[in-house]
Order: sequence, then structure tokens, then C-alpha cells
Amino acid sequence: MTELDLDAVEAGVRRGDRATIGRALTLVESDLGRHLERSQELLRRLLPRTGGAIRVGITGVPGVGKSTLIDALGLHLVETGHRVAVLAVDPTSGRSGGSILGDKTRMARLCREDAAFVRPSPSRGALGGVARKTREGMLLCEAAGFDVVLVETVGVGQSETEVADMVDCFVVLMLPNAGDELQGIKRGILELADLVAVNKADGDHVAAAERARQQYALSLHYLTPTEPAWTPEVRTVSGRTGAGIAELWERVEAHRAALEEAGRLAPRRAEQAVRWMWRAIEDELSRSLREDPAVAALAAQLEAEVRSGTTPATEAATRVLARFGLSR
Amino acid sequence: MTELDLDAVEAGVRRGDRATIGRALTLVESDLGRHLERSQELLRRLLPRTGGAIRVGITGVPGVGKSTLIDALGLHLVETGHRVAVLAVDPTSGRSGGSILGDKTRMARLCREDAAFVRPSPSRGALGGVARKTREGMLLCEAAGFDVVLVETVGVGQSETEVADMVDCFVVLMLPNAGDELQGIKRGILELADLVAVNKADGDHVAAAERARQQYALSLHYLTPTEPAWTPEVRTVSGRTGAGIAELWERVEAHRAALEEAGRLAPRRAEQAVRWMWRAIEDELSRSLREDPAVAALAAQLEAEVRSGTTPATEAATRVLARFGLSR
Repeated sequence: MTELDLDAVEAGVRRGDRATIGRALTLVESDLGRHLERSQELLRRLLPRTGGAIRVGITGVPGVGKSTLIDALGLHLVETGHRVAVLAVDPTSGRSGGSILGDKTRMARLCREDAAFVRPSPSRGALGGVARKTREGMLLCEAAGFDVVLVETVGVGQSETEVADMVDCFVVLMLPNAGDELQGIKRGILELADLVAVNKADGDHVAAAERARQQYALSLHYLTPTEPAWTPEVRTVSGRTGAGIAELWERVEAHRAALEEAGRLAPRRAEQAVRWMWRAIEDELSRSLREDPAVAALAAQLEAEVRSGTTPATEAATRVLARFGLSR
Repeated sequence: MTELDLDAVEAGVRRGDRATIGRALTLVESDLGRHLERSQELLRRLLPRTGGAIRVGITGVPGVGKSTLIDALGLHLVETGHRVAVLAVDPTSGRSGGSILGDKTRMARLCREDAAFVRPSPSRGALGGVARKTREGMLLCEAAGFDVVLVETVGVGQSETEVADMVDCFVVLMLPNAGDELQGIKRGILELADLVAVNKADGDHVAAAERARQQYALSLHYLTPTEPAWTPEVRTVSGRTGAGIAELWERVEAHRAALEEAGRLAPRRAEQAVRWMWRAIEDELSRSLREDPAVAALAAQLEAEVRSGTTPATEAATRVLARFGLSR
């Protein structure tokens, strides 16, 4: 990448210039050390202009129809006057291969809209932190004037927890059941949901989708909400026909209003930001240790000894830390 | 503590001598640096004798009747020929105050049994790691010949996740409902359960407990089990009358048999041990950074700046790491 004129990039982002937004995102997604300082400077300058979007996370298993739903939802939002950014967290995304998310061929209609901006997931690189990069991309999009940011993810590693911790509203997409057996919900994900949307409520599946909706609603009912200001809800939608999309968005807005009314929106975001600071610290600490060549060799050997019951876990830890130069 | 003769302690633990077991536990629970090396040496020597117990975690909100249930369950186990250790993880346990768990006055019957050993939670000390100490206490109890270890916890911080990660079978106690409204299940805990036991299924509550059992079973039904070899179940019990206790234990044994049959018991414990090694490494890394005086001051200042939207989270992280002496 040729050296960027940071002032020009800043100005272009503020103007909402698409080409500049793309370059700015490439900068924050970069793994190159020399880009880190510049991307942090850019974010610092634009930080006061962030925070202006409704931040929504969307997850669901492959095949549930996320792309089609986001295409339909995005269009609805554009048609009702919003400017929509669609980002993604896909830890499997490699440097040379595409991500399975943010597939522009499946969001074909949305990608043609000037008021929409669709970006594939950052790659997992030497410095890790795919979600961190997506979050910073979200901040840039807010500074560029997008008033809705959708962050898509699949259930790989911690990606759902990380996306839930960067958005205001977390939406989990589910399939309707084919019979009496509901698909299992990956443990831990139901608990993150502010809204559950049973997709593919169309054609022969309308009744099944409604049954599934009632059953998921019962399940949610027994979970204590983590956010006192909001009780999670279950809806049916169809990404294919558009049924339920406007209603789903109305619930996202209701969720936002509930948070604001309870004075919870700003504090939640503030605490999320602090957690991201510590996440970045812990990740880098951990990375420094694990990638220290002397430590890596010893850790691998000790893992084997711990696994086989030869060495106690805490003793192994003490020896790894000593090799890294830290002792109690 | 006077200096211990490690050989004598080792021999006493192997013999199952109660007084020595107590001293050994005090050693591993100690926060004193000079005890760390000795406690690790003791664990190393006894490690080959560990692994011989059924390891069960038990959680539930205050008031659900954990102590009474553990008393009843422990007695049942002693009466059927087992040697039972009861340990606890209570992160709120202080040096000078007692823990709210392991209340011997509420496990009065069990505490009088020679075949049972009840130990309060270790204190949260300078070196943190209450759960780590309890886990090492569990290993010592196994080396001393206890064939059942019950680890009790309440829902504070990460204690439930930590206990679930040191046991084979995780039991969640719930209250029956008083009407149609079930008490909420703290999000994330239901997903850890191998068994759910609805307590207080006695007196006027028998029917309510059975209704609650059916409803929790429905909820669990929609969660994908994390352990392929076992489908979580829901039972009713009464710590007060003893109803359902023997049946509950039979399900714990069935769970154990299912894990063994699927060849999962040893691999699960091996991977748990490796996670404890890394937990100890990460905890100490993190502690070193947070307690570094120069870092602590800067981190507090930067947290405030991040919280107020003045400084981006990643930039704050970079500055904290630089102060700690680490830069990318």
C-alpha cells in the first residue's frame, strides 16, 4: 500500500467517500506494524464522530440464510432512508481466500445500493484479532455517517461472544423445524440473544416456523435476561419473501429505545470499550508469550506432560512463566 | 506454619490420615511464595495416585438448598461404602471470614462421618486462583483415597465455569416454581449442566417440582449437548427428605459410565488439565501486568479515557503494553 495521507483519509471518511472508506478499512485491518500507529491515529481523530449507528450483530448456523436475510433487511433499511454498513467476523478468513460471510453474490441487491456498504471479514493474521479489526471498522463506518451497522458472524470460536460484545442488539437466526425435533441451539448462543428470528417462514414452512417460534420463546423464558432493560423476544421472518423483516427491525428499534430509556445504552458501550481494551492487552500478552521461541518449545513439551499426567498443571505453568522471564 | 516435612506429609496423605490431609490442603491453599514450590513438589509426587474419584460439581443459587442436599447425598454415599470429600469454590471467601459454602453447621451429619471430609473454600488471596487451589485440593483428596469428590460453588464470577472444567459431571440445582413462573436460570449455567436437579420436591411442592422438571427438560432439549456421549437430564430431589437422592447418584454413575464407554473420560480430564495450565499462565501474566505499579496507574487513567470515548481501546492497550515493556 502506498503511504496514505492521513489527513486526506480522515477528510474522505468524514465526507462518506466510499473509496476512502475502503482504504481506511484496509489500513485498520492491516497486520503491518507500520500501519498500526497510523490506523490508531486515524481512529483517535475520528473517535468523536463515532457512536451514531444502531449496532446489530447477526449470527446463525451455515444454511440458515444469513446472507439472504441481511440482503432483505439491508434493502428495507435503505428504502426507509438509512445508510447501512454490513461487516463480518469470520475467524476462518484467510489472506488469500474469501470469507464464507459477506458473500456479495448473495447480497447482490444490497451491494448495488449507494446507501449500503458491504465489507468482507478481515483476515486472521499474525496479530490475530479479527473481531477487534471489525469493531474498529464499525467505528470508521459510523464516522463516515452510516447510521446502521450490521455485523455478521458464524459460530466459530469466540466470534459470537465477541460480536455480541461490540453491538447493542444481538440477533440469532434459527431454522424452523421439519417435524417435532427442533435443531439444537449451540450452547451459549441462546443466552446472548436479544432477538431470535426463525427464518424461512415461507412456503410450506410457515406453520413449522410459528411452532418453532413458540418453543424457542418458552426456552428463552427460563433464562434470566442479562440486560435488565430488555426481555428477549422470538419472531418469524423470511429472507426470501421479506415477510417479518420490517417487524423484526421495529423490534430492534424497540430494543434500542428500551436501552436509551433505561439510560443503559451509553454505559453498555463504555463498558464494552473497556473490555476491548483489556481484550487487546490480554491477547497481546498471551501472544508474546506463546510466540516466544524458547517458551513455545517448552510449552509444547509441558502440555504433553500435563496431558499424560506426568506433570501437574500449575507446576507446568510456573516453568513456562519462568522461561518467559516472569516469576512470582 | 512450621516447616513441613514433605516426606511425612506425602506418607500421611497416602495413608489417608485426616490431620495430614488438612495440613496438605493448607499448604496448597497457601499464598506464601515459599510454600508454592513445596506444594508443587507434593502434587508432583502424588500425581500418579490421582484420578481415582468420580468428580462432581454442584451449583445453585443461595437458598436452593445446596448444603442440605450435599449433606444428604454425602450420607447416602458413605452409607453405600464410598469415601467422600466435599470441597468448595467461593471467590468471595476472605482470609478472616468464613465462606458461605461448606457450612459445616448445615452439613452437620456428614461432618461427623469418618468416611467424609468437608473443607471450606480456599480464600481469595494475593495470588488469586481460588478454583485452582480447590482443584489441587481435589487431587490431594484423590491421592488420599477418596473415591467421590463433590465440589460446591455459587454463581460468582467465573466460578461455575471453572468448577465445570475440573469435574466430570456438573449438577445444577434449581428450585421448584411457586406458580407458573419458573425462576430464571442464570444465563450460561444451564448450558454447563450434565444433570439438573429440582430440589425441595417435598411437602406441598411435589407437584410443582415435577412441573418444573418437565419445563427445564424442554429447555435443555433445545440445547446441543457439548459432550456427545451424554444427553443432559432433569430430576427431582429433596435434600430434606432424601427423596430422589439415590436416583440422582445413579444418574451421576450412568454419566460416568457413558463417558468411559465412549472413551471420553480420560481425554476430557487431560484437556481440562491442559486448560488449567494455560489458565494459570494467563492469570499470572495478567496479574503481573495489572499489579505492576507503573502500569496500574496508567491503566486506570486509560480506562477512564476509553470509557468516556476520548481514547480508542486498542490505542489504550498499546500504551499499557508499552509501559509493561512489551511492544509489537
